[in-house]
Amino acid sequence: MIGLGTVGGGVAKLLRDEADLYAQRTGRRIELRRVLVRNAAKARASGLVEPDKVTDDPGAVVAGDDIDMVIEVAGGIDPVRAFVARALENGKHVVTANKSLLAAHGPALFATARQHNVSIAFEASCGGGIPCVTALTCGLMANRMDGLYGILNGTCNYILTEMTAGGKTYEQALKEAQDAGFAEADPTLDVSGADAAQKLAILASLAFGVKIEGDDVHAVGVDGLDLKDIAFGDELGFDVKLLAIAERWPGEKWVNVGVQPCFIKKDELLAQVKGPFNALSVHGHAVGHTLYYGQGAGQMPTASAVVSDLLGVVSGWAPAAFSNLNLTPDLTEPAPLLDRADTESAYYLRMETLDEPGVMAKVTSILGGKGISLSTVLQHESKAGEVVSLVVTTHMTRLGDVEEAAKEIAALGPIQGEPVIIRVIEMPA
Amino acid sequence: MIGLGTVGGGVAKLLRDEADLYAQRTGRRIELRRVLVRNAAKARASGLVEPDKVTDDPGAVVAGDDIDMVIEVAGGIDPVRAFVARALENGKHVVTANKSLLAAHGPALFATARQHNVSIAFEASCGGGIPCVTALTCGLMANRMDGLYGILNGTCNYILTEMTAGGKTYEQALKEAQDAGFAEADPTLDVSGADAAQKLAILASLAFGVKIEGDDVHAVGVDGLDLKDIAFGDELGFDVKLLAIAERWPGEKWVNVGVQPCFIKKDELLAQVKGPFNALSVHGHAVGHTLYYGQGAGQMPTASAVVSDLLGVVSGWAPAAFSNLNLTPDLTEPAPLLDRADTESAYYLRMETLDEPGVMAKVTSILGGKGISLSTVLQHESKAGEVVSLVVTTHMTRLGDVEEAAKEIAALGPIQGEPVIIRVIEMPA
Repeated sequence: MIGLGTVGGGVAKLLRDEADLYAQRTGRRIELRRVLVRNAAKARASGLVEPDKVTDDPGAVVAGDDIDMVIEVAGGIDPVRAFVARALENGKHVVTANKSLLAAHGPALFATARQHNVSIAFEASCGGGIPCVTALTCGLMANRMDGLYGILNGTCNYILTEMTAGGKTYEQALKEAQDAGFAEADPTLDVSGADAAQKLAILASLAFGVKIEGDDVHAVGVDGLDLKDIAFGDELGFDVKLLAIAERWPGEKWVNVGVQPCFIKKDELLAQVKGPFNALSVHGHAVGHTLYYGQGAGQMPTASAVVSDLLGVVSGWAPAAFSNLNLTPDLTEPAPLLDRADTESAYYLRMETLDEPGVMAKVTSILGGKGISLSTVLQHESKAGEVVSLVVTTHMTRLGDVEEAAKEIAALGPIQGEPVIIRVIEMPA
Repeated sequence: MIGLGTVGGGVAKLLRDEADLYAQRTGRRIELRRVLVRNAAKARASGLVEPDKVTDDPGAVVAGDDIDMVIEVAGGIDPVRAFVARALENGKHVVTANKSLLAAHGPALFATARQHNVSIAFEASCGGGIPCVTALTCGLMANRMDGLYGILNGTCNYILTEMTAGGKTYEQALKEAQDAGFAEADPTLDVSGADAAQKLAILASLAFGVKIEGDDVHAVGVDGLDLKDIAFGDELGFDVKLLAIAERWPGEKWVNVGVQPCFIKKDELLAQVKGPFNALSVHGHAVGHTLYYGQGAGQMPTASAVVSDLLGVVSGWAPAAFSNLNLTPDLTEPAPLLDRADTESAYYLRMETLDEPGVMAKVTSILGGKGISLSTVLQHESKAGEVVSLVVTTHMTRLGDVEEAAKEIAALGPIQGEPVIIRVIEMPA
């Protein structure tokens, strides 16, 4: 094993406490031989593994003759990338929880594994304990996928739940998440949507059979979200969720991938996913709508995915799926990404305006001029001369048209600042 | 393939329409060679498969030299059981959607498969298109399972949704389900809970690593459910669902399996599963709570599961999991079933009583005498001498005590008929 942090500790615990169960299930005893860490003294003192198993020599793990499989739970890209490559070159199967590594270098590593007739298993890289990679690569294999809609970052979902149910500001909710241990001291990767974007790249590559890298995913985080929009959404019957979305569109450029705060109807199953939980809605052409729910992070849920993969390698099913199904992005073409401006959806727009006569007429005239048809209009009572929120929701419309209209609206005299645009998701049935 | 009914037609359609996709995914072309039916003329006229593939000769399918795998989508036990056994004996992998067959004869068929070095894949037997068997046998393999809570029968869930949301009676809702094509002309297997019990036997066997047959599962259906109890449940914050439950209990007898209408809190995810959809909540000791949702029946969802299994056999992952993980009930001991009377839960009781002075005191005294502690008491205004409903909910209590108390209460003079007892589920976190 490479790494003995939170997840590594959980894996070590499962392998120690459930050794008999796993031997019964697989007919083989699984032995954790060696754990590679940066600081061997600290790891030996942790009590998580027997002290003589700890090493700071990478070769003893990734090239050890007595090692059949390498579990990578260290995270980050360097030096882990080189360790994983060396393990594969030495004919060792790899189980990894590392979404950053796979989103950035998956294709090269998958190709290395194939050259050396071994496999990479990566259930734990997306959705923590939820077996969503197994669902996409095994259980739903008969389907052409139409779309993925995921809540893939527990920190963001916790923050949004607190903002929605508790009326807390983003800053208060983030501090709570940090105090509760859901959010890192530096939460940038989570709250910017980058973490969800990496997971989406991995899942969408498998679902659509194309190569998508983390950088291909347009990501907007929760850090810019205003309580005012959550309140208006509530009034309109929506909850806000940070959704990782991959959609199939008609035409030659057919892949749309993005992460952004979205409004969804309160009675959608995804709206019921609260706190640090994650969920992935998968829409397949034969199976229709399916959904996978569980803890998307945390020590034991993530260790559950890592050890389930490990047992999959031991029993042979994971290498068979890896070797004999042509799914991973070393075998597929770069995704024909659609220009975001050409995607269509319903949208919510909020404009702050001085309450002067004629503003509504000018705004609706700009929207109408772009062919944008309105679904609802919302404006609360105000006193003349005050700044007031003007909220509209649209029917299905081109994003590019909405963005152009917003630019024109922002240029109107009484309008204060830029309009807020939030996608309104109409989930497929 | 054996059978060309609704599901068989869906499988034929997928294999025809997605031949290129499956060839790309597996590197092999999959050919539907022969379809065994009772009435060959009718099947040839259906247009679902080329007429020359249709046969009424079982040997041409289950013993054909040019057949690698047999898809069984005929349903029922005889003569299918003999066909499946013969296919296995002839070294053919079997994919089946047949829950009745597996719940009654799974162990013998699994053993036959093992003897002949082939596999049985059966994702489609439980939960339609939802890959819940794959989740239990692959994705969650690292866990000791604590409990399964499933909505496993779409007909019952449709009926309950209509009774709850539409205020329809059981008879009206059943008729609607039949008109909409969810319920069979003879709906007994569905509404009695027997269908859900068969699926639960299969899933719980895998989850707990013990042998459970359909007959081991205590089943109460939706056919006895009264609108009055749905209304009282609603007032108490509950929805009613037909839940298939398998729970681990402390002690030597630790398996409790049953199907019955239960109350669950309205904000539970399972309460959001509406209409003909199915869902399975799985609680593992490492992963915690996970949930799998989708269409539990219907042509294309079920065909999705069948063809995904087929691709699993072609790629080798399904046979590897079957052969190398010791999960199926041919390898496990009969379940140490707990006496239902010894299980504990919260309960709802409704008694119909003449509104006479002192009834409440007598009822609560009987309950108190059995050590049953009450959570809520509900009685609506009434006129003296009228029959009125008296509703109580209990804290955690032994079922045997509740049933004895109910018997004593039924014997009280003013009480009309038997008290209604409904389990109130407190879902593990």
